[in-house]
Amino acid sequence: MSPFTGSAAPTSPWRHLRVDRADGVATVTLARPDKLNALTFGAYADLRDLLAELSRERSVRALVLAGEGRGFCSGGDVDEIIGATLSMDTAQLLDFNRMTGQVVRAVRECPFPVIAAVHGVAAGAGAVLALAADFRIADPTARFAFLFTRVGLSGGDMGAAYLLPRVVGLGHATRLLMLGEPVRAPEAERIGLISELTDEGRADQAAQQLARRLADGPALAHAQTKALLTAELDMPLAAAVELDASTQALLMTGEDYAEFHAAFQEKRPPKWQGR
Amino acid sequence: MSPFTGSAAPTSPWRHLRVDRADGVATVTLARPDKLNALTFGAYADLRDLLAELSRERSVRALVLAGEGRGFCSGGDVDEIIGATLSMDTAQLLDFNRMTGQVVRAVRECPFPVIAAVHGVAAGAGAVLALAADFRIADPTARFAFLFTRVGLSGGDMGAAYLLPRVVGLGHATRLLMLGEPVRAPEAERIGLISELTDEGRADQAAQQLARRLADGPALAHAQTKALLTAELDMPLAAAVELDASTQALLMTGEDYAEFHAAFQEKRPPKWQGR
Amino acid sequence: MSPFTGSAAPTSPWRHLRVDRADGVATVTLARPDKLNALTFGAYADLRDLLAELSRERSVRALVLAGEGRGFCSGGDVDEIIGATLSMDTAQLLDFNRMTGQVVRAVRECPFPVIAAVHGVAAGAGAVLALAADFRIADPTARFAFLFTRVGLSGGDMGAAYLLPRVVGLGHATRLLMLGEPVRAPEAERIGLISELTDEGRADQAAQQLARRLADGPALAHAQTKALLTAELDMPLAAAVELDASTQALLMTGEDYAEFHAAFQEKRPPKWQGR
Repeated sequence: MSPFTGSAAPTSPWRHLRVDRADGVATVTLARPDKLNALTFGAYADLRDLLAELSRERSVRALVLAGEGRGFCSGGDVDEIIGATLSMDTAQLLDFNRMTGQVVRAVRECPFPVIAAVHGVAAGAGAVLALAADFRIADPTARFAFLFTRVGLSGGDMGAAYLLPRVVGLGHATRLLMLGEPVRAPEAERIGLISELTDEGRADQAAQQLARRLADGPALAHAQTKALLTAELDMPLAAAVELDASTQALLMTGEDYAEFHAAFQEKRPPKWQGR
Repeated sequence: MSPFTGSAAPTSPWRHLRVDRADGVATVTLARPDKLNALTFGAYADLRDLLAELSRERSVRALVLAGEGRGFCSGGDVDEIIGATLSMDTAQLLDFNRMTGQVVRAVRECPFPVIAAVHGVAAGAGAVLALAADFRIADPTARFAFLFTRVGLSGGDMGAAYLLPRVVGLGHATRLLMLGEPVRAPEAERIGLISELTDEGRADQAAQQLARRLADGPALAHAQTKALLTAELDMPLAAAVELDASTQALLMTGEDYAEFHAAFQEKRPPKWQGR
Repeated sequence: MSPFTGSAAPTSPWRHLRVDRADGVATVTLARPDKLNALTFGAYADLRDLLAELSRERSVRALVLAGEGRGFCSGGDVDEIIGATLSMDTAQLLDFNRMTGQVVRAVRECPFPVIAAVHGVAAGAGAVLALAADFRIADPTARFAFLFTRVGLSGGDMGAAYLLPRVVGLGHATRLLMLGEPVRAPEAERIGLISELTDEGRADQAAQQLARRLADGPALAHAQTKALLTAELDMPLAAAVELDASTQALLMTGEDYAEFHAAFQEKRPPKWQGR
């Protein structure tokens, strides 16, 4: 936890997710394999709360988001979510849809890179969760589908109409969100939707390797890179250049920058501290 | 027409365009094939006014924009437009250029998807019209050319300098707008400028099929998806997530969402109402 | 120089860059080949000042940015920059990082297209300089590397976290800035990072040819195209369409537009004046 903790106790256990930690890497697994990891109200709330808690822990330097079983995540559960929302009143509908959006904001705004390890289906909210991650590592079975219009809803769910055009361009994004058709791994790679295509069955392992590398590296530099990428999508050039300047000036006073220079002089690899 | 109609009567006939309607699908054909469908002052004004009128008709759920004859549209007519603008005063020049921009805004802001069916040349204003559409369905003869600098004008015409970087990225957009070189179908597909590449001579048919599918589907969901894609290009992430939440809450009170759930329970295809 | 010159005298000589001019084309060469053209404090300051001075000269219509020797530019010099910044105070660090950002802003905001001719390494600040250019012409030896995290700094340096997602999309940009891995010419072409891939050893020549063509063409139209592309990344659609309208109205009063029409009527090539 950060030095600046108030009265709140850390949550334990997380009942709707599996959470593992290993030396700077947190792994969050959607673990309802009999339901293709369909999301429930509890799972959304836990994702939101978990990301907020992890953001206060200085020890987390990279996070892997994975799905157990045959696929990554089939999205909101048809019975538990769609059925339930049909009897909600206006305020409850807003509360639910704000919660799902808060999960996406938390993925974009948490101070460590998030790596989605995708195999099989990543549909609906599952596709948007992967989209919000910093890295999407997928194997050839991966299949993204922004299914929202297929259930009569807007393709702009949980920030998808903001994020997808900024990842694959407005033309592809319109096609994917309007039609809800599946995007298989080769097309996903071609249009820039995935970061790395692995051999079949190797997405989880590759995601762990990347997370390990990020956590063992200059983690504060990674965190700031993510923060600037997120912030500068919404900033004009002049402001972005000024933000870069002050961020870089700050990092130039940090230990990792000095360590790089010392290591370079001594012709040895740097020992990163992540600060 | 929408329930909220005032005194204005619908225009009839449209003298500078061919307009067909069939069960929710409007087809607008640029029909001056002897001039490669070059645009005139009247055609621009009709496009602007037609899109405004169709936007007030709840019955239009998808629009196809097509060109008759050898190509889609060769852009502003050299004789009728370029020649005429040379003797315009400042206010007239602004009036003309605002009108062409209003056509593009109308294509982006109308409450139904627009599908450009492109074969042969889509040049100058014709290229921007196609660019503004939600879908560009092209056959192998398609050739996009943002020719503006070739006539001594800015490549940023009718919103092209806004739209093109958001579709193909800033690097390709700079090259295309600055040099005005033709982009043929294979490159257009590679850089994300077209949504679907058809066999030769089949762009119109494929556009009609997509329009039919969109019109017969959850059309309100499609309309909101388009509205969010358009709006969220200009919004920060936090605002976009909030807009998504309120839009989705609204659609969750709609008939199509309930129909999806009922059909799912009954293991039958949904009967979409578009509301 | 522009008619609107005050008291400032033009700088001569430029001690940290080689500057050549030939009939509307300025060529700026990073010329420290023994150091792979690593940038020094003096080189950054000269780039900033030179672009400002050239922006006041109406005679410059295109600029080529090239590197002498084995590569384009290896970025900030490890000894002269990284070493020196380690003993700077807070204000000095801000001053330095603002200067590097001002170079990028100058490349984006100068009133003529900038063509980076890239062979070999374009690393760190060298990669961002190329990224800020309007065109990146590269040969097969080109290797872009946004190395910042490798030295413990943020990948968002000099506007890179603003520019790169707008050129290659957020997914590729995150991977490139966070990991600092080299992007070789084939991948750079695939993701839209380069404008033109030449044969080996021909990037400089191709850049000169493009600069010549741009300088001999309707240079005011090119300048305005660049200005609109830069500005409209930061504008909503409605404002962009209005800016396009007033820009186009202005250019329709210019000599090149009339010349195009006259040449078209007379079936001869236009004689561009660039105004």
